[in-house]
Amino acid sequence: MRVDFKRVGMMLLVLAAATPAALPAQNAMNGTSHQQIVEQIAQTALREGQAYDMLAELTALGPRLSGSPQAAAAVELTRQMMARLQFANVRLQPVVVPHWVRGAIEEAAIINSPTQGNVPLSICALGGSIATPETGLTAEVLEVKSFEELKALGKKAAGKIIFFNRPFDPTVFDTFGGYGGAVNQRGSGAIEAAKAGGVAALVRSMTPSLDDFPHTGGMHYDDSVPKVPTAAISTLDAELLSKILAHDKTVNVRLKLTCQTLPEAPSANVLGEIVGVEKPEEIIVLGGHLDSWDKGTGAHDDAAGCVQSIEAVRLLKALGLKPKRTIRAVMFMNEENGLRGGIEYAREAREKQVKHIAAIESDRGGFAPRGFSVEGDSLAAEKIISWRAFFESVGAERITRGGSGADISVLVRDGVLGLGLVPESHRYFDYHHSDNDTLDKVNARELELGAAAMAIMAYLISEEF
Amino acid sequence: MRVDFKRVGMMLLVLAAATPAALPAQNAMNGTSHQQIVEQIAQTALREGQAYDMLAELTALGPRLSGSPQAAAAVELTRQMMARLQFANVRLQPVVVPHWVRGAIEEAAIINSPTQGNVPLSICALGGSIATPETGLTAEVLEVKSFEELKALGKKAAGKIIFFNRPFDPTVFDTFGGYGGAVNQRGSGAIEAAKAGGVAALVRSMTPSLDDFPHTGGMHYDDSVPKVPTAAISTLDAELLSKILAHDKTVNVRLKLTCQTLPEAPSANVLGEIVGVEKPEEIIVLGGHLDSWDKGTGAHDDAAGCVQSIEAVRLLKALGLKPKRTIRAVMFMNEENGLRGGIEYAREAREKQVKHIAAIESDRGGFAPRGFSVEGDSLAAEKIISWRAFFESVGAERITRGGSGADISVLVRDGVLGLGLVPESHRYFDYHHSDNDTLDKVNARELELGAAAMAIMAYLISEEF
Repeated sequence: MRVDFKRVGMMLLVLAAATPAALPAQNAMNGTSHQQIVEQIAQTALREGQAYDMLAELTALGPRLSGSPQAAAAVELTRQMMARLQFANVRLQPVVVPHWVRGAIEEAAIINSPTQGNVPLSICALGGSIATPETGLTAEVLEVKSFEELKALGKKAAGKIIFFNRPFDPTVFDTFGGYGGAVNQRGSGAIEAAKAGGVAALVRSMTPSLDDFPHTGGMHYDDSVPKVPTAAISTLDAELLSKILAHDKTVNVRLKLTCQTLPEAPSANVLGEIVGVEKPEEIIVLGGHLDSWDKGTGAHDDAAGCVQSIEAVRLLKALGLKPKRTIRAVMFMNEENGLRGGIEYAREAREKQVKHIAAIESDRGGFAPRGFSVEGDSLAAEKIISWRAFFESVGAERITRGGSGADISVLVRDGVLGLGLVPESHRYFDYHHSDNDTLDKVNARELELGAAAMAIMAYLISEEF
Repeated sequence: MRVDFKRVGMMLLVLAAATPAALPAQNAMNGTSHQQIVEQIAQTALREGQAYDMLAELTALGPRLSGSPQAAAAVELTRQMMARLQFANVRLQPVVVPHWVRGAIEEAAIINSPTQGNVPLSICALGGSIATPETGLTAEVLEVKSFEELKALGKKAAGKIIFFNRPFDPTVFDTFGGYGGAVNQRGSGAIEAAKAGGVAALVRSMTPSLDDFPHTGGMHYDDSVPKVPTAAISTLDAELLSKILAHDKTVNVRLKLTCQTLPEAPSANVLGEIVGVEKPEEIIVLGGHLDSWDKGTGAHDDAAGCVQSIEAVRLLKALGLKPKRTIRAVMFMNEENGLRGGIEYAREAREKQVKHIAAIESDRGGFAPRGFSVEGDSLAAEKIISWRAFFESVGAERITRGGSGADISVLVRDGVLGLGLVPESHRYFDYHHSDNDTLDKVNARELELGAAAMAIMAYLISEEF
């Protein structure tokens, strides 16, 4: 008797697919085929993921502040990456970006203390700050922990450098919660200092760790009050300054910043995709932001999210998957100080009436993935939360309701389902916006698993929405 | 009317405790009071945890290989820590330990290749290896990926240095799975090399990463075959040696090891506890191992587990909790090359008929906790798994059936419920048993959260078993 091996093989496959024991309990979808694809994506990422190699290329360009030559290089590099990987419809989406520069001359802040003499502090201008006069600015320091405390001090603040020194609340498990409780000092410290009659603002760096590095970041002004120069101070020097203040009562600091805002510059988002086979006109976005601050090389923030987005699309292609819908990697430009890329992407989508099913952002670092947070329509969000079991093989099963990401926030406001990849958060703010945000702080396996989690999520949404 | 504020306060507390909305869905225990204690433990650990400071003290002693003066210092330091923290019944439990030393003279392995000349390799003796002759040992290298491959080569192996070069399987999510698939080369490579007539064994380091560091670790001999010297080679140099072999076919290596086994040495486990208020004779153990390999300072392996065990007990004391049962921190000695501490602890427990309810080990690094693995009685294990929701506030809700820890393995064999703290595993083997296992690789928040997870688990078991 001849055995038709091909037919037996197919029968076994059909039997395997129909075996209920192979279904995860939460699997309300196509059964084993999805689970098998999930495993393939995870294993391919761990065996031969390319996100880390791409991260090395991207961070080797240096810091990529909007408007800088390095940001332009990042646009061209990621365009070439997508072309090399044979993504479809690779294109640049032009945006005009703010162009702030730290300045060539050294920044400095020096305590002049009656008892300690001259003590240099580890500081850096916050992004968007004006410079001090060329010779610097010397004034007495007034320490506060909150805007309310500053207001209550009334006229005592006049003529002073306002030192905002409220630390992260360490008891919040998610460090983004600690950040959220402290970051108004950085964002609005200059405005509140000026309202109180202060001449400058010095802001404790946004990190829960005690280190010697100033952590920069965005700040804004309000046209109704004077603009005052604003700098971040390292957490260790914030503690030192606070101690000297407690001892000496009156402490002067000389602050010198040489930063400036130049004319806006041309730049671009970078797009590339797999075209969907059933509904090519319906888009799922995977994105991160190409620009970084000018400290370190923005490895975690957000080169990681960019290369994960490209790698997620590459993984789907490498496995020969043919998603129903179009899955698009988007490198957003200018998240850090303008969000111009995210705004332009959403504007064009609105103008051209492009249907977006979901947008998934990675902008919380390249650490081991823990899950996703989902915002938007409740039923859609609950559907995604019901898929938790599919994400166990990459450690990303903690899927909850919550904010997604800044770059996709305008899409989300326009009604698109938004998802944020949520990695382990404990180390993120140790590196964030500082000289420490470099390639060596990223673990290859952790980064690749994040890319796999994004690929799995994009694929499931493509097939099941 | 006078208001009895104390009574009103107590009534409010009672009301709060009785509110069902505050209960997590999975809470089958005492309701909010447990959940409140869980939150208190987590927040205290994040706000004022002392595990990281203790880790700095312990790793400052240097590597703590069994029998070394530094291991003796670690016994005394942790005894003092427990005394300083006013633990009850602080005591040493004497054990005699093996005493292997690497030797004062430099270890070396040098390729002599027809085309490449002399190429030094990054190697180190495996723990327990014999030395080479004083002038070294020169032989041709034979590369294999498995013991089966070696056996199949028959007499070709005679007189050669057997080079075991099977890498970790990178596709296994848990790196301990990859380790498990490769580590027989390290443990039994010397025996298999000798059986095949080989004169030495060179083993690819047990790490999934490509680095320049040899990773040491335990190996054993079998009295029925000759003992041959055995060394680990860095993964990068394993790749290099493999490439040169592929090109040159015949490659000689000169290997020199100066290690030796000295007479056994006196040492000790260190114990300290909170005495239970209802069942003081029933013990829950929290433990890690004091000894380390002689590379790096054993920060993750396993100073982390030691200080987490002490810190877990300290947290319960600091919160004024009065557990029903005795919760005991145990610093086990000699996990790495003998398990004498774990064996002696279990032997004494058996001899004195001490009732152990559970033993919880931390020996997988001081990374962010993800959960626990539980082994032992099925109903007891399922009860613990049902507590998952209590561990969400420290990120440790992934509780599954599985192995616990080496030090407590004898207790487990004697019927005690065993639990292993399971942290994020991706970076563990990058550092493991190498010069890279140092304090700076440990993040304070992640370490403290692991201690909190252990404290919570010990407390819940104490109250609910």
